[in-house]
Amino acid sequence: MARPSPLSGFPELLPAQRVVERDVIDSLARSFELHGFANIETRVVEPLDRLAKGGEIDKEIYVLQRLQAQPDETAGRAPELGMHYDLTVPFARYVLEHAGKLEFPFRRFQIQPAWRGERPQEGRFRQFTQADIDVVGQGELPFHHDVEVMRVMVEALDALPLPPLSFQVNNRKLIQGFYRGLGIPDVTAAIRVIDKLDKLPAEAVAEQLVEAAGATPEQARTALALAEIRVPDTSFVDRVRALGVHDELLDVGLAELAAVVEGCAPATGEHVSVEANLRIARGLDYYTGTVVEIFMRGYERLKSVGGGGRYDALASDGRTSYPGVGVSFGVSRTLVPLLADGVLAGSRPVPSAVLVAVNDEESRPASDAVAAALRARGVPCEVAASASRFGKQIRYAERRGIPFVWFPGAGEGGDQVKDIRTGEQVDADPAAWRPPDEDLRPSVLTRTIDDEESTP
Amino acid sequence: MARPSPLSGFPELLPAQRVVERDVIDSLARSFELHGFANIETRVVEPLDRLAKGGEIDKEIYVLQRLQAQPDETAGRAPELGMHYDLTVPFARYVLEHAGKLEFPFRRFQIQPAWRGERPQEGRFRQFTQADIDVVGQGELPFHHDVEVMRVMVEALDALPLPPLSFQVNNRKLIQGFYRGLGIPDVTAAIRVIDKLDKLPAEAVAEQLVEAAGATPEQARTALALAEIRVPDTSFVDRVRALGVHDELLDVGLAELAAVVEGCAPATGEHVSVEANLRIARGLDYYTGTVVEIFMRGYERLKSVGGGGRYDALASDGRTSYPGVGVSFGVSRTLVPLLADGVLAGSRPVPSAVLVAVNDEESRPASDAVAAALRARGVPCEVAASASRFGKQIRYAERRGIPFVWFPGAGEGGDQVKDIRTGEQVDADPAAWRPPDEDLRPSVLTRTIDDEESTP
Repeated sequence: MARPSPLSGFPELLPAQRVVERDVIDSLARSFELHGFANIETRVVEPLDRLAKGGEIDKEIYVLQRLQAQPDETAGRAPELGMHYDLTVPFARYVLEHAGKLEFPFRRFQIQPAWRGERPQEGRFRQFTQADIDVVGQGELPFHHDVEVMRVMVEALDALPLPPLSFQVNNRKLIQGFYRGLGIPDVTAAIRVIDKLDKLPAEAVAEQLVEAAGATPEQARTALALAEIRVPDTSFVDRVRALGVHDELLDVGLAELAAVVEGCAPATGEHVSVEANLRIARGLDYYTGTVVEIFMRGYERLKSVGGGGRYDALASDGRTSYPGVGVSFGVSRTLVPLLADGVLAGSRPVPSAVLVAVNDEESRPASDAVAAALRARGVPCEVAASASRFGKQIRYAERRGIPFVWFPGAGEGGDQVKDIRTGEQVDADPAAWRPPDEDLRPSVLTRTIDDEESTP
Repeated sequence: MARPSPLSGFPELLPAQRVVERDVIDSLARSFELHGFANIETRVVEPLDRLAKGGEIDKEIYVLQRLQAQPDETAGRAPELGMHYDLTVPFARYVLEHAGKLEFPFRRFQIQPAWRGERPQEGRFRQFTQADIDVVGQGELPFHHDVEVMRVMVEALDALPLPPLSFQVNNRKLIQGFYRGLGIPDVTAAIRVIDKLDKLPAEAVAEQLVEAAGATPEQARTALALAEIRVPDTSFVDRVRALGVHDELLDVGLAELAAVVEGCAPATGEHVSVEANLRIARGLDYYTGTVVEIFMRGYERLKSVGGGGRYDALASDGRTSYPGVGVSFGVSRTLVPLLADGVLAGSRPVPSAVLVAVNDEESRPASDAVAAALRARGVPCEVAASASRFGKQIRYAERRGIPFVWFPGAGEGGDQVKDIRTGEQVDADPAAWRPPDEDLRPSVLTRTIDDEESTP
């Protein structure tokens, strides 16, 4: 078997990198649970007719086939299966399938991989892990959950060791109401056009507003003026009012967006800021109110590292509809580039805080007993693989980043333990000794990259 | 969208059931890490030529195809991909691919789903989660790691809230050496035949030993006598000796098996026992020494819920070989039936220990502030979705199994909290009050099923 080469688009982490990913996932789960979000996992496959919507994404769906399908199966009695490409489609199906056994509003978080057969590039993978939170109601879902969901994700991301993140929030009702009040004939087309502002110059967008949405040049100018508003507080309300457009839906949108910005303010910190950015539309059609995109400083080239919003029909079984509001955070999209750049690293590739040395193979049971005593008090450790020279055993620990080496019977009255970073060696009792808390488990190391270095 | 129906072979857990699965996975991870095993995750796909070995399993491999593959891709430049059907094949590939960046012996644990397109039945699924531990060496791997790996899995499973488990251990060298010393012409065929003892009566197996392995009737009887030995200690050594067979490989096998049984003894407890069972062979050809199968009392119909052993060539790149020893535990195979039978259940479907009531929508921020104060001290909580009558808010908590309801401003000098199980309501300060530790998080409830009820 030759040495295998990596598969493009399927990143894999080394053990020390995986320390970072687990730490991030554990931290997210703790934050979500503090807010009452329950964890679920869905199967990774869905019937193809539930995945394929006739849109762009269809090209990227992976379909499952048995290597040697039986003749009666190819006849097509079983539904064709595809791998989910996000966590929203399977969650909507889960809610419908298990609705009778769930309590609404249902808060859930889900941290799982998804698959897209797209062309791999930095931050875009064929297998990638996402962390999603959603609140779903049965029939109705009060607006205050919009504020709740955004605040929970702000808090959860603020607890992570990431470069500064920015939540750019907007509201579909605000945009729609504004365009309607302004008198633009095709509001939906206008939203689609405005969404191109990060790719096209303002004049080109203005032209398209005229051509595709039927706006007058004056209306296009006013629409662009709206899209230029970006503030870290609720001052956007006065600035929108100053544009002189009046509409009931606009009023609702302004109030909702102000409530989200104000509601998130107590949760923002050093790492996460929240801004009203009135050009954020999110192309996908199913958003109906709050929308958000999340960006990471120094990594603007990744585009958004998360996003979400309010959708008034996450799912429906014909009689009952299930409105929801949620945010998704791209775990792989964020971490894989940060790990590659060395911005984040695990402090060591093994959980062991202690390597218990072995004097000779005959006394291995004594070393095992030391390890058992340490583990009984929660100290991760391993016993040396071979009874080689102590210098070699110490280097074995060094290569793994294990901070302490234990020498059974090395002292006058018993054992000794050596901090191999300082060289300090002291008498120690396996039934009482503990490493300092910061050495007990591998931790996440962070390195700041200045913007110039990290922006290509 | 009609209400979706479940997909056969793809079990999904409700939130309270998922509490149990997460608890089990967290406990396994903690145990493995105490012993210095590092966590990795591999991508879920492998090139098909690495998965398909021309054996029975090939029929069950799921192959991935893009829904709308581009013409240049169907031309076959990219390797065909299949979903992994266990965690051993991807681990072997991971070791080869990343060998230059790993330290050997490499201890890893891996808890991930795998996929097999087999006919679903109880305990056999098309998507199922496994928990694997392995130690892999570069070039060589001392025998003491066999003892280590078995002991670690015994300890890890002993910490779980499962019905009693039995590790049935044997050694391939023991069987091979015994058959060779006995003079059976085709040792490999004999192992394959003996492996059928749980399906066929002893006489039928004896006949096949004669027919397929070229044994004399006398040799077949002695081989069966070996297979009948099953003891919870090292007394098997004397019983094998009493059969009068002599062989060097047999001696090595006896010593190794005795070391495993003795080495595991200190780790066995109420829940897990270890027995030498000399009929355990494990059909797969790559085992070369220690072999183990794990059974669960009352669930013998599931066959083994785990297994593993020593393989002298987990992987090889042509120049270097990587011997390993490992055990796999079937998380889904074990938990899905136990959850279905109600032997295990989660204590509540939500993480929240407290529901903070809302007096009216105007005072929602006050309720949010109480929740924030509780969370700051690690108490998971949620705020009532609507300011309905308190009776309704209490029932909302009841339906979710949330033990406490908090009433802002209900007392003379401040808030009150009610234990809705006892009805007791007391004054409480959100900056100081804590629920009892056992109520802080959802826990795993266990119910004993007597054997008669659970064996069909």
